[in-house]
This record gives sequence, C-alpha cells and structure tokens, in this order.
Amino acid sequence: MSLVDLSKQVALGIDIGGTNTKFGLVNHRGEILVKGSIPTDEFETPEEFIDALYEKIQPMADEYCEGKEFEGIGVGAPNANYYRGTIEQAPNLPWKGVINFADLMTEKFGKPCKMTNDANAAALGEMMYGAARGMKDFIMITLGTGVGSGIIAGGHLIYGHDGFAGELGHTIVKPGGRKHWSTGSEGSLEAYASATGISITAKKMRAEFPESVLNQYPEEEIDSKTVFECAKQGDPTAIEVFRYTGQKLGEALANFVMFSSPEAILLFGGVIKAGDFILKPAKLHMERNLLPIFRNKVKLVFSELDEADAAILGASALVWEK
Amino acid sequence: MSLVDLSKQVALGIDIGGTNTKFGLVNHRGEILVKGSIPTDEFETPEEFIDALYEKIQPMADEYCEGKEFEGIGVGAPNANYYRGTIEQAPNLPWKGVINFADLMTEKFGKPCKMTNDANAAALGEMMYGAARGMKDFIMITLGTGVGSGIIAGGHLIYGHDGFAGELGHTIVKPGGRKHWSTGSEGSLEAYASATGISITAKKMRAEFPESVLNQYPEEEIDSKTVFECAKQGDPTAIEVFRYTGQKLGEALANFVMFSSPEAILLFGGVIKAGDFILKPAKLHMERNLLPIFRNKVKLVFSELDEADAAILGASALVWEK
Repeated sequence: MSLVDLSKQVALGIDIGGTNTKFGLVNHRGEILVKGSIPTDEFETPEEFIDALYEKIQPMADEYCEGKEFEGIGVGAPNANYYRGTIEQAPNLPWKGVINFADLMTEKFGKPCKMTNDANAAALGEMMYGAARGMKDFIMITLGTGVGSGIIAGGHLIYGHDGFAGELGHTIVKPGGRKHWSTGSEGSLEAYASATGISITAKKMRAEFPESVLNQYPEEEIDSKTVFECAKQGDPTAIEVFRYTGQKLGEALANFVMFSSPEAILLFGGVIKAGDFILKPAKLHMERNLLPIFRNKVKLVFSELDEADAAILGASALVWEK
Repeated sequence: MSLVDLSKQVALGIDIGGTNTKFGLVNHRGEILVKGSIPTDEFETPEEFIDALYEKIQPMADEYCEGKEFEGIGVGAPNANYYRGTIEQAPNLPWKGVINFADLMTEKFGKPCKMTNDANAAALGEMMYGAARGMKDFIMITLGTGVGSGIIAGGHLIYGHDGFAGELGHTIVKPGGRKHWSTGSEGSLEAYASATGISITAKKMRAEFPESVLNQYPEEEIDSKTVFECAKQGDPTAIEVFRYTGQKLGEALANFVMFSSPEAILLFGGVIKAGDFILKPAKLHMERNLLPIFRNKVKLVFSELDEADAAILGASALVWEK
C-alpha cells in the first residue's frame, strides 16, 4: 500500500503580469521553496517566453524537487481561460489573439498545467494558505489599478459556463454614472473603487474644495497614496474621497452578498492600505443595503498573504484544486 | 449485482405557499403520477399541518408507489433553509419562529426530507426536467408578485454559507431609488420588476400621461395584466411601462452575468406573459452593460415547465440532487 505523502508534493506557481512574470516552487503549506522572475515584455512570441521560463525554472526544480514530487503547474494571467487553458486577447500582454498557453507549458515542462485569471488565483490562494482557510463560501476582491474578483461557492471557484465568471469590478454600481476609461461602461465598480477611480474622484473633489490640502500636490501625484497621506492629516476632502469610494464599494458588496451569501469578503491590493477610511463606509453601506437575513453576518477582512508572494501562491493553488 | 432502476424511483415534491400547499409524486422524467393540495393557513401548528399532509399523501403513495421506490421528500417553502431543514421567520406562513420542518416530515413519513426556498427549487426543476436540461451554469429568475432567483454554478445550486444565497430580487439596481413596500430598501430589482413594481410604475406613468388608455381603468385594476392588454392595443404609456421595467431588469441581469457567467438566464412567472414588451428592452440593456467578453453569449429564455406544476417539480428535484 502506498499513501500519497503531501509534504513531498511541490507545485510551480507562475504569475504573468504585463511587465514581469514571477514564479515560485510552493509546497502544500504555502511555503515558497524558491522563487524568481523574468521580464514578460521582452519576448515576441509565447514560445520564446516559455523557453526562457524553462531555462530559468528547470534547474531550480531539479535542485529543490530532489526527493519530492513536482506535481504540476498553475498559472495566473490576465484573460486566462480555465477551461481552455488559453490566454485570450489580453490587452496588457505582448502576445495577441488566443494562445494555447497551458498546452505549450505542458509540452515544454512535461507537467500538467492549469490556468485562470489572477484574481481567481488569488482567491484559491487565500482558501489554501490564507485568511480563507476552512471557508467554503467567500468572495475575494482585489482593489488595485483595476478591481478584480474571485468567487468561491461551496468550496469551488465559480468559473461560469465559459470560464470568465467573476468580473465583479465591471458590475454597474451607478447606472449612467462615471464612464470607464477603457471599457466605456457607465458607473462600474472599477470606475470608482480602483486606484485609478480614486484618483479621478480626488481630482474632482479637490477642484470643488480649494482649501483642501490635496491642492498642494501636482496633478500627477494625486493618487490613492497621496489621498491617504492627506486623510491621515485630517483633510476633510481626502477623507470624503475615501468615504465616497467606500460607499460605492459597500453598495456593490451588498449586491454580491445577496448573490452568493458568502461567509466573508476578502479585500486585497494597494487600495486597502487606506484601511478604515475605506473599510468603515464600505461596511456601513453594505449593511444598509442588505436584506435583514444577511445583516451582521458577513466578515469584511483583509488578505493575510504577503502582497509580493500572493500571486505566486494563488497560481500554485490551482495545482492542488480538486 | 443489483443496479438501481431509476425508472422505479419516485420523489414527493411539496410546494408550501401562504394559502395553499400543493404536492405531487414525481418520477425521474418529471412526470407527476398523482397530485393534490391542502390549505396551508387552516393549521395552527406545523405538526397539525404535517398530520393533514400525511393523511392525504400516504394513501396516494401506497397506491402509486406499489412496485416502485419512494425515495424521499423535497419541499419548497418561503424562507426555507437548505442546511438546517428549517422554515425561519416566514412572514406569509401561519407558523412563527424557526420550525424544524424537515425533521418533522421525516419523523412522520419515515423518509429523508430536503428543503429550500421556492425559487431555488424552481431552478433545480428546470435543470432536471425543463429548459435548463444539460446546463451546468444558469440563473433562474422568477418574476411574480415578488422577484425570486436560483443560481446554478458548475452544476450545483449556490446555497451560500448559511443557505440563503440567491436573493437577486433584493439586489439594488438604482441606488436611492424606489422604496420597497416591505423591506424598506431603496431601488431593488423587486421594486421595479415584480408585478407589484409594474403596477406602481403604471400608476405613476398614467398620471403623467392623461391620454393613456390606462386611465380608463379603476386604480385597483392597474396591474401587469391590464398594462399588457393596453400595450397590445398600442398604448405608448403601457409600452413604456414595460420598456422601463425591462431596462431595470436588463441592467440587473448584466450584473448577474458578470458574477457567474451563466449559459442562460431562465425567466419564469406571471410577469413574463408580457413577452417581448419586457424581453426586448431587458436584452438590450443587459447587452449594453456587459463587458465585451460576455456579449451575445447569454441566452434569455422562458421556462418550459407548466406554471401550475413547476413548484412541485422543482421541490421533487431536491430529492435527486447530488
């Protein structure tokens, strides 16, 4: 009789970003044995990119997986499709069209490869190693340059019929509201609650309130970091920027809760550095818009994963996913 | 070796409404072998109600299940909780508080009993016997006096961490919009797209347009049926009532699609009798608010189940659910 020794299994997690690609060999406990990175945008074809990944990773795998089992590869990438193992029309990657990325990886590495978008991967990472350990129903919201999401229901990631489920950043929170700079939609969550959205709100509000400290900064420095600095100094306009952002976020979260009734909503990404300036109004407006049966039940929590490693960990979690 | 003969299995489906309770014995193909009903509101305690159900059903089961397997009981009821097998604080039922309904049923009938709310049961019924056969990802929206919903993702009903998921009728489609007559929330889908919501919209709009045919009816006859009659006659105000309703519905559907990326949205209930008057604007505004990757993919379809039997069929499907 042979039992599977989980402690000996290793997964390769790869996070493909527009500029850089990070990777790491990860064990079942979420410990990164070794990690590294290569630039993404220096390779004209996905084949060249994968060759370069292999050159860098295989020697590490040979060294660190000795006496262990290299189980497989998980990839988080923009516009990645879970069912087809493809990257499709990703605007921020150098390779256009539909790329059969998982097949190319398996061909090169001789290992099974699964992929999904970065926010879905992040949700799996939280369930496997992070703040959502033991949870079967939660929603992960990543608040960065954009707003991404991954939804876990009944212990499984929701992929939808085509593999593209969980685009909560693009749900409309204010019909006819702010036009999105890239999608053209009006009033989406991302138009308000992303770093870009916060910057737009801040520029509008400082123009209305000439006495705001925000007016002491040049245009290009009006970002969520500067707004946070000003809010900490007590500037009412900066505080109002986050309150307004939090309200929009909270209204959206209420709708998400009435969809899948999660135990918790996990927040991740640069924007959450604003802490209670955003969290308190978000919680207030979420609760206010919920049916009574959902009130005071849903935890709003911050991610427990180190931001630098979260994407690698999330991608590796795809390998363990049943 | 003994194989399970599916054709011999029978499930009891029970649909509990505020006034009447309907039940039927159903086979795997969704054929109702026998059905019946008892009043709900004549029984002061759930025990008396269950005694009366048993008196009526057991002789039928003895007759129709001869040579077959009576597998179990599925119950659709307002405020029913799947995990706990309870009916909790249902405002329209005569029994208050938390009722351990499934346990009471099992005690009396000697069969396992599962329960969920009526819209969730309807979704299971569509997957098992109706328009969603073979689908693993779809959303069922019931447009009646209220707006209910059941969400199937990856072949499973989404129950959420507490069993109350899928309250899409209460998601907010217009922040700060129309106050809901019962929940007090502002701008929920139900406030616009339910029969009650349509009646409110119609009363407002006919007051604005004195020339509308709608003004020839007394106040109490302004319901979705009357609006439909007037719309068919070409009354622009009546047509606008449905267009506005369809717009709000379509905006909500876009958000639902970006959540779980369903293959189809199934519509069911009295309101859909308005047909294209509602469906066309709903489709238009759904597509308009979707990210390009979701556009022209999601089918908007009407339920295939007979409205009179759908609730019994849906409840019975709980028994077959894995």
